[in-house]
This record gives sequence, structure tokens and C-alpha cells, in this order.
Amino acid sequence: MPQDRHDDPFEWIDEESERRSRAGLVRTIKPRPADSPLLDLAGNDYLGLARHPEVTAAAGAAAARWGAGSTGSRLVTGHTELHAALEAELAAFCGFEAALVFSSGYAANLAAVTALSGRDALVLSDAVNHASLIDGCRLSRAEVAVVPHADPEAVRKALETASPAPEAAETAAETPRGSETPRGSETPRGSMRPRRRALVVTDSVFSVDGNAAPLPGLAAACRAYGAALVIDDAHGFGVLGDGGRGAPQGAGLAGAPDVVVTVTLSKALGSQGGAVLGPARVIEHLVNSARTFIFDTGLNPAAVGAALASLRLLRREPERAARARAAATGLYERLTAAGLSAVRPDASVVSVRAPSPEQAVQWAADCRAAGLAVGCFRPPSVPDGISRLRLTARADLTDQQIEEAADAIVRTAPTA
Amino acid sequence: MPQDRHDDPFEWIDEESERRSRAGLVRTIKPRPADSPLLDLAGNDYLGLARHPEVTAAAGAAAARWGAGSTGSRLVTGHTELHAALEAELAAFCGFEAALVFSSGYAANLAAVTALSGRDALVLSDAVNHASLIDGCRLSRAEVAVVPHADPEAVRKALETASPAPEAAETAAETPRGSETPRGSETPRGSMRPRRRALVVTDSVFSVDGNAAPLPGLAAACRAYGAALVIDDAHGFGVLGDGGRGAPQGAGLAGAPDVVVTVTLSKALGSQGGAVLGPARVIEHLVNSARTFIFDTGLNPAAVGAALASLRLLRREPERAARARAAATGLYERLTAAGLSAVRPDASVVSVRAPSPEQAVQWAADCRAAGLAVGCFRPPSVPDGISRLRLTARADLTDQQIEEAADAIVRTAPTA
Ligand SMILES: Cc1ncc(COP(=O)(O)O)c(C=O)c1O
Ligand SMILES: Cc1ncc(COP(=O)(O)O)c(C=O)c1O
Repeated sequence: MPQDRHDDPFEWIDEESERRSRAGLVRTIKPRPADSPLLDLAGNDYLGLARHPEVTAAAGAAAARWGAGSTGSRLVTGHTELHAALEAELAAFCGFEAALVFSSGYAANLAAVTALSGRDALVLSDAVNHASLIDGCRLSRAEVAVVPHADPEAVRKALETASPAPEAAETAAETPRGSETPRGSETPRGSMRPRRRALVVTDSVFSVDGNAAPLPGLAAACRAYGAALVIDDAHGFGVLGDGGRGAPQGAGLAGAPDVVVTVTLSKALGSQGGAVLGPARVIEHLVNSARTFIFDTGLNPAAVGAALASLRLLRREPERAARARAAATGLYERLTAAGLSAVRPDASVVSVRAPSPEQAVQWAADCRAAGLAVGCFRPPSVPDGISRLRLTARADLTDQQIEEAADAIVRTAPTA
Repeated sequence: MPQDRHDDPFEWIDEESERRSRAGLVRTIKPRPADSPLLDLAGNDYLGLARHPEVTAAAGAAAARWGAGSTGSRLVTGHTELHAALEAELAAFCGFEAALVFSSGYAANLAAVTALSGRDALVLSDAVNHASLIDGCRLSRAEVAVVPHADPEAVRKALETASPAPEAAETAAETPRGSETPRGSETPRGSMRPRRRALVVTDSVFSVDGNAAPLPGLAAACRAYGAALVIDDAHGFGVLGDGGRGAPQGAGLAGAPDVVVTVTLSKALGSQGGAVLGPARVIEHLVNSARTFIFDTGLNPAAVGAALASLRLLRREPERAARARAAATGLYERLTAAGLSAVRPDASVVSVRAPSPEQAVQWAADCRAAGLAVGCFRPPSVPDGISRLRLTARADLTDQQIEEAADAIVRTAPTA
């Protein structure tokens, strides 16, 4: 035991805690009951499937048949025929050659970014990308450049002016990792620069504001410079594209040989887990090199079974995707008609501005008192410093629920 | 679309794939059926709970009651009373003040290492640590020193000779992250060096060889220098300590104010997920700063319910822990009596040497043909270059199964 105050290795935690307290930034977690009286506009269950009886029954059936856990890495005992079925159906649905399931969307993003870049690579990451993509960039040891938000022209410029790859010799002494140095230094068409592995990484729908990335422009920029495009479709999959096939499919990029997509099973499919979709050789490469695949226990069968049931339900009821989008648009229109400042939703997330962090917190609390659960984002979670309510629309919201929700949000709005 | 070969951004993947092929290192995944005829000595279901009817029923019941997914971050909608119950019972069982559940053990390790270190910190990481701890170190941006395997003296020396913290000014320009610079530079007792955040990170039981870390020695070294100790108890929890309370409890470290433990719910508890256990202030700090907590969807209710059921079962049947250890010892004794070279198991993993990578692969295949699923590790997964079979014992193996398994492994052993 530490014998005096100086020996306490966590003293700094109290100091940080006090600073957070003074700044009014303490986060606490409050468990919710199974049957909450609140109308949920905060969760990411876009298609209303998390509690669909078919989906929850599939979770139970999968646990009964395959076990509560997968018992090991997918390379050892953690790969079941149920995982294989989900991967095949996910790939077919989204229009990609192959898919690989991970224990979370976070793990899928870490895998895609690290295994497709590596120390010599250049990674261009949108300024508003999700934390898991940012962590993937940090883990990759690549040269990472943050590019202006949703700006294909900026991506083009960054690819054009990118420095050539460092000498291969510099990295030769590295211990073996998933991502190694590309051999040779070929010259891409129309350029005198040496060939260098380049990756552009973006959310398809940005999680806080719900706005879409300019995927066609980004894909064109990538192609002009031989870069690969990694799209995190966490908030697009199930909502955008034909019958919810995702934002890349909607942008004509399904099955493209130079595009890799990640999805999460925890939002539109109402389960847990993530997946990477792409060319078969990319998936094979991930099996052989992605650390969050190799060194992680396979997704639990209940989550796999639930995701598969949701996917089949969505194929059978493709209108759910359109309904989720329409619910968001309906909410947005009512809010802006009443004078609130919101971002036009490109998918199912509606972001509404609050005048200050304090007012945002108060607004969310007032919504709660009025029977609504809403998300509340403020600095430092939002890099632009703008506080907002984050509302998620669901395919199963009725028009009346949308109307009442909008009324309550407007009624409780702070006066700026 | 790329228009000629030079525009193909994934050309390097084919080259890597060919290299792997030539080296005989291609990994493939084969899905297993629900009812495999093989005796499983490869999974990490140490207590035989993954398919226990009480556990799988709890998974199904939790999905039915709470939904197939948790629907959001634990800070938004993903925290249910079921999560809170699991956390309270885990903390009480292992003897720590508080616990925090993550979507995987991998995510729990990333959280513990990153949130407790930071750019100015020194992290000492055992040379044989798990990939998730290594990734935590990489993400932390701390100064990371790899210390010789299971060597408290080496840890002492590294803490003693550690360079002082870099100037605080260097880090002041950083964007806000979970882990910030410790304020002040106090002098620890018995030392003239400036105070610097230091963290020692180790597996409790190393996953490949199944040998235990010298926890008491490591804890003493940490205390002499005011460092914190992070113990990944993935392979000790449920197997070591009183009734499976884990390796830290067995080493007298339960509830220590300077020790943080991570566990996984995917091995002894037969489910999925992970948890961090420690002082309440550490857990509160993680809630406020750990990126894999804040920006990840909460663990799916089925996995939470299953883990909770397993934990309750283990409390009711504490002899399962001893049986898992005895099964491993029984296997080890039979194998070494027959002349094989194995590592004496400290928990439930038995590692047996193979003379070469090729022979290891052949041996595992021969075991399979004889009805046994075994793990097979070879370079580059094993940094020491020694190929081995990795066998896991389970509490529910009968003496006869252990005997027959040992016979088959001996019968198929390569002649060196
Ligand atoms: C854009 C984005 N990507 C990835 C993730 C991570 O997915 P998961 O929560 O399934 O791990 C999330 C949310 O959690 C997200 O919003
Ligand atoms: C030592 C160790 N730590 C952490 C993990 C990660 O845990 P999980 O698979 O639950 O993510 C594993 C195995 O997968 C492990 O062996």
C-alpha cells in the first residue's frame, strides 16, 4: 500500500476529476429500466429492430444452439457456421464480394484502417471522423493527415502534394506486423511521384450532425491518385441505399475494387458487432493480419443470430429504410418550421443547435421531463464547440409520436 | 474504377499474399458446426459454461427483456440495469470497489492502458503481453518500454532509471484527450526524480504458454516507485484465486488502491465482453475518458445476462475453478510422463512444444483426425519462434476424456 500521499499513483485522477467538476463536464451513467416510459430519440436503433420479437427470439435461439459465447478467436474455435452465414448474407446484401464480422464496429474500424495502411502509408482522415477511425489512424503508424470536413477537393490536393514514401530501408527492421511495406515504387498513371500506399478514410454519415459525406467526389479523388477509400457506414447501413443497402451502394460504389466499407451491427440491425465489406482479397488480408480479428474472441452467437434475423427482416421489409429517413425529415421539418436551427438530415440523425453548453444540458433535461430521451453533445465531445441535441428517428415512430416529440422539443427550447 | 494495373490500390495485398503462401503462413477460417464431434481442447471455455443451459437461457431471457442490442453508448441509451447488476456483482466477487463493462476484453484493455497513461507517462509492458495490451500501449502515446518477461527485478530497474517526465509545455497544445498531464512535479519518497505517471502492464496468465506472472513481485516493484499496476486477468479470472476470484485476488491484491484489473467475459464466463475492475475513482475516470467506453455501443444484453448467470453459477459452484486447474495439471502430467516437453500450467492452459512449425501443423491435424481440437501456434504469432500446441483444459472434462486426449496427443506426437 502507498504509505504517504506521494506514493498514490492515482492522485492525478482526483485532480482531473476536480477540473472536470469545476468545468461542469462530469459524465455519469444512469442505468435505464427495461420498460422506460420515455420515448427514445437518443438510441441508434434506426429500424426499430432491437426489440423486434423475431430478432430477440433469434438471439435466444442462437445462444441455445451455439452457446452463449463463441469460445475463442475466429481463427481457433470462434468461427461458427452462423458467423459464416451472416458474412455471406451481409456481403450479398450490400453488394460486396466478401465480409468479415468483428466483435464491434469499433474493432472493425481499427482493423480496416490498420491492416490497409501501415508505416509507409499516407492516411487522409476527415476532420469529423468517428473516434474508432481516429484510433485506427493512431494505431496504424502511418503518416496521418486530417483533411477538412467533407471536402473532396481538399483530399485531391492532399493526395497531389503528398510527400513520397519514406525509404523502405527505414521500416525493414520492424517486427512483423499485419501491414508491411509495399514492394517496388511504381509510378502511377499521370504522376511522377513514387507509388505509395494511400488511404482515404471517412464516415458515410457523420454521427453527431447526421450529414452525409460526398462519397462520389471522394471516390473520384481516390481514383485519380490510386488511393483506396475506406467508408465507415455505421449510420448509413440499413438506412441509405436501396432498401437500406447502405450509403456506398447509394453512391454507386457497391462492389468497387478500391472501396472498403465498415458497418456496425449495433445500430440499424439492433444487435452488436461490426463488419468489414470489400473485395475478397482484402477480407483474406484482414483474416491474416488484422489484430482485432486475430486476437479477439469471435462475436457471441446471440448477437450474430440477432443481426442475421434483422438483416433478413430488412430484406423482407425494405420500406423500413425509407421510413427511418422519412421520420428524420419529418422531425427536421417540424423543428425548423418552428424556428429551430437544425442540420437537414441525410439519414436518420437530426442535429439541433443549442445556444450554449449549459442550455443544451438544460434543454435535454427538460425534454426528459416531457417524456423524451434525447442525446446532448457539447464540448469537448464536439470539436467545433457547438452544443447540440442529437435526435435519432426510427422507422417505427408513428406520425403522432413525431409530432408530439417535435412539439415537446420546440416547447422546451431555450430562447437564445 | 482503376484503369490499369498501376491504379489498383490493393496490388500490394496480392504480393503479401504470395509471400505468405510461399512461407506456408496462410491462415484460413473454417466454420464449425453447432454439434462438433471433436473434443474441444482449443477454446477458452475454461469452466464449461458457454453451453450450460442456465447460461444460454439467461442470454435468451436478457435479449427478450432488454432487446438484442443495447442501442447506444453506455453514456446515452446503452446502460441498462442489467449492466449495472453485472458490474456490481463482478466488483464484489473479485474484491474491487467498482467495475466497468466493455464490449470486449480487447476494448477493456485499450481503455485501461490509454486512460491510465497518456503522453507524459511511462508504461512498462511485459515482453509477452497480449496484443490488446500492446495496442493500448501504442494508442497511449506514452513512452513505452518493453520489459523482460515475468521479471520484477527488470521492472524495478526500469522504474529506477526511467527518464524524468518531458516538459509539461510540450503537451499543452494537445487537443483534449482522456489522459492529461499530471500537474506539478512532486518528488516521490526516497527519490530525487520528478514525479511522473508510471504504469506497469502485464497479463496475469500468459495466453500462449499458460504461465503466471509474478504478481506479488511486480506489485512490490510498483509500490517502491509509486507506479500503478494493470493486470490483464483474462486467463486467470474464474480459474485462479479463491473460487475463481482471479489471479490478483490469489496474490493478495484484491481491492488494492494502486492495482487495476481487466477481465474478459468471453473465456471462463463463456460469454462476450470485458471489464475493468479497480478503485471507484479509476472507474469514474474511465467513464469520463476511455474512448472505447464513450464511443462504443454498450455490450449486448444477451452477453451481459449470460455473463451474470455464469458468475452466479461460479459463486454457487466454486469447485469449478479448482476442477479447471486440476484438468490442466492432469493433462500436463500425462503428457510429460510420456516424454513430451510442456510448460507446467499455472491455470488452465497447457503449452506443448513442437520441434518445428511444419511438425506443429501436422501434429494439430493428426490430433484432429483423432477427434481432438487443439490450438497450434507458430511464428510469427509466437515472438520466441517456438512452435507449440496450445491445449485448454475445462472444468467439465472427465478423467476419461483427459486420459484419452493425452493418449491421442502422445500417439500423434512428432519424433523430434
Ligand atoms: C460512425 C461510427 N463508427 C463506428 C462506431 C462504433 O460501432 P460500435 O458501437 O458497434 O462498436 C460508431 C458508434 O458507436 C459510430 O458512430
Ligand atoms: C490475455 C488476453 N487479454 C485480452 C484478450 C481479449 O479478450 P476478448 O477476446 O474478450 O476481447 C484475450 C483474448 O482474446 C487474451 O488472451
